Amino acid sequence: MMSVAPLKPMTVEEQAITAKKAAKILSMLTTEEKNDALRIVANELEKEYGIILDANKKDLKKGREKGFDQAYMDRLALTQERVSDFAEGLRQVAGLPDPTGDVLSDWTLENGLKVQEVRVPLGVIGMIYEARPNVTADAAGLALKSGNAIVLKGGSSSLSSNKMIVEVMHRALEKTKIPKEAVQFIASTDRATTQKLFTMKEHIDVLIPRGGASLIKAVVENATVPVLETGVGNCHIYFDKEAETEKALNIIINAKTDRPAVCNAAETLIVHKDWLSENKEILAETLKEYGITIHGDQEAAAVLLNVIPANEEDWANEYLSLDLAVKTVNSLDEAIEHIDQYGTKHSEAIITENDDTAKRFMQLVDAAAIYHNASTRFTDGGALGFGAEIGISTQKLHARGPMGLPALTTIKYMMSGNGQIR
Amino acid sequence: MMSVAPLKPMTVEEQAITAKKAAKILSMLTTEEKNDALRIVANELEKEYGIILDANKKDLKKGREKGFDQAYMDRLALTQERVSDFAEGLRQVAGLPDPTGDVLSDWTLENGLKVQEVRVPLGVIGMIYEARPNVTADAAGLALKSGNAIVLKGGSSSLSSNKMIVEVMHRALEKTKIPKEAVQFIASTDRATTQKLFTMKEHIDVLIPRGGASLIKAVVENATVPVLETGVGNCHIYFDKEAETEKALNIIINAKTDRPAVCNAAETLIVHKDWLSENKEILAETLKEYGITIHGDQEAAAVLLNVIPANEEDWANEYLSLDLAVKTVNSLDEAIEHIDQYGTKHSEAIITENDDTAKRFMQLVDAAAIYHNASTRFTDGGALGFGAEIGISTQKLHARGPMGLPALTTIKYMMSGNGQIR
Repeated sequence: MMSVAPLKPMTVEEQAITAKKAAKILSMLTTEEKNDALRIVANELEKEYGIILDANKKDLKKGREKGFDQAYMDRLALTQERVSDFAEGLRQVAGLPDPTGDVLSDWTLENGLKVQEVRVPLGVIGMIYEARPNVTADAAGLALKSGNAIVLKGGSSSLSSNKMIVEVMHRALEKTKIPKEAVQFIASTDRATTQKLFTMKEHIDVLIPRGGASLIKAVVENATVPVLETGVGNCHIYFDKEAETEKALNIIINAKTDRPAVCNAAETLIVHKDWLSENKEILAETLKEYGITIHGDQEAAAVLLNVIPANEEDWANEYLSLDLAVKTVNSLDEAIEHIDQYGTKHSEAIITENDDTAKRFMQLVDAAAIYHNASTRFTDGGALGFGAEIGISTQKLHARGPMGLPALTTIKYMMSGNGQIR
Repeated sequence: MMSVAPLKPMTVEEQAITAKKAAKILSMLTTEEKNDALRIVANELEKEYGIILDANKKDLKKGREKGFDQAYMDRLALTQERVSDFAEGLRQVAGLPDPTGDVLSDWTLENGLKVQEVRVPLGVIGMIYEARPNVTADAAGLALKSGNAIVLKGGSSSLSSNKMIVEVMHRALEKTKIPKEAVQFIASTDRATTQKLFTMKEHIDVLIPRGGASLIKAVVENATVPVLETGVGNCHIYFDKEAETEKALNIIINAKTDRPAVCNAAETLIVHKDWLSENKEILAETLKEYGITIHGDQEAAAVLLNVIPANEEDWANEYLSLDLAVKTVNSLDEAIEHIDQYGTKHSEAIITENDDTAKRFMQLVDAAAIYHNASTRFTDGGALGFGAEIGISTQKLHARGPMGLPALTTIKYMMSGNGQIR
């Protein structure tokens, strides 16, 4: 059982079975053995940046031929510095506490049976992601550290880069206790392969999609393997009637403009009519100053500048740009109802000086992260001090919000007895 | 938002929306308010046992007409004592700690932003179950205690009983702070209703199927709502070459015969050839004495009595009867491989006096509960001291093994600041 087949062209099912075998070996390694391996992989990536950049050039050439836009090409492009960042990321993961083996609880039954609840790896993780080649190294590092094998399926536009990163990682893993078969890369991009990956419940323990809303939707709808849903954030900032003006403006500007393309950016400003009527000029000026395009309801249009009339789509849209929907309400509960209807359960904020109002908002709004008088931009593994994250979960089961290493584990009850029967 | 529509014939979608509104009210109640409500419901069920038994008679009559077997009719039948058991179950749940509101961790970022990870209800639970009417009261009690609304869909054979139990519960809830709309019962049994229930991702937070393998499979394959998979147990007992004879025999008899129809009963005995050759007579006698029908491989057939040749189906079968598959192996790793191939990740046991062998088995076997020298029958919320269980999870995400009240919760990050931005 402990032998692992050599790497050769395999079907996706063979790859998953091979990964599962490798995961067994990996699950028996010590934390130090895993950390040493991650550091060796990091060094190899830094040393071999040249061949990774060569492979990346092929992807960039294809991208230019296909006419990808500049933002997309920027995400695709690697530099020596970016490769060093992968390596640094792996070293950071090596420095994090190992969640596996932790005894979460233990007790002894009256009959003497000892019970331990122990944290263990999930097994095999299926990672499906889009343009950025850095996910290849980042996701592999988090999986290996938490004792899991990983099957990687990157986007076709970064195929050469991803393949070369995996090749370099494999070469490095040969010098370590981690079997290189614990990192599998699916090069095929045909539908049948993807469909198989989504449904190999017996070989893959969880699927994690990282990318746009359509990728995530495709995985959720077609997978029978359990999915850790990540990412789509239609985040709201609610200015209560008792919101302090400067705080409120600072927060909406930060949440909207700091990095508009990320999932914790604000997409809708909900504003109490009393606050709006007192602060309409400064709100209008501030949004204009930062180049924000407003899609507003009638009440917003009446007092703000250059407002595009908002429709149903605007309330539901994750713009990921400097566009902002503005909804006016008569009460806290109306704001909560709007979030219930259009929110994606990611990050929601209330700005108010009234603690009771804040408490009601925080209790009744259903989301991974709820803020009182702070920007939604803090919903991030790094910002919250989790050390590293595999994504931000917008689901309620298993893991919610930024997912660190523990999200890649499950538990096992281990019972030791001396012949106990019921 | 806080008003709830009156009960009237509703579509399943309207029922789910109504449940979600009620869940909001429920999530704001104190533990004491919830406990009081559960005790009032318990009293009402005991008081009104007569009309529940009358309703049950209708189901029993239909069952006889349909020619259900005696075991099925026994599960369906209610008595005054069984109704009292429901009530007692609700009182026990009232006595359990309330998991919601627990602060699981809290810290402050350098910028002063306070972070709390708080346990909160999931929201709305969809419960799909078969014959036993007791699930109606049990599941509702666990849901309400953990702050969740519940949409119940019982089997058609217990429709009258289930409906009356819900009616009595509703009448009692009117005297409490819990809105009666938090308990919804779906009386319709048509396919379209079921399909809708499986796919209302926006209104239902989790589906929990309780019943046979085919029910669970139907839910897992058709649902887009996340599922907490429960129950199927193809459990193995492995007699290592260093297994102590008396312990081994006691455990296999207990695990196979104590309650053969439950999911933590043993279905396959895996036996090391060395142990078998030393203990063949006593094993043969013991299995015969307890009326166990053996489905064995060639090596087992050569030394045991009246062995039916085992085939692939036997290795995978959850007999739920006094049938037992017997597989012989040459090594520990061969036993683990067999479990990897045919196990359902429920409960697995090794009998050995060698602690290193036990450790390897416990680390490498992938299941919710692993036993060393004890019966698999302990995988049960009651036996392990969880107080009550909503089912036994055989999946790895969210909850694994017996699921108590915490399995019906999720977490929320609550951040309090004074204007923090990134």
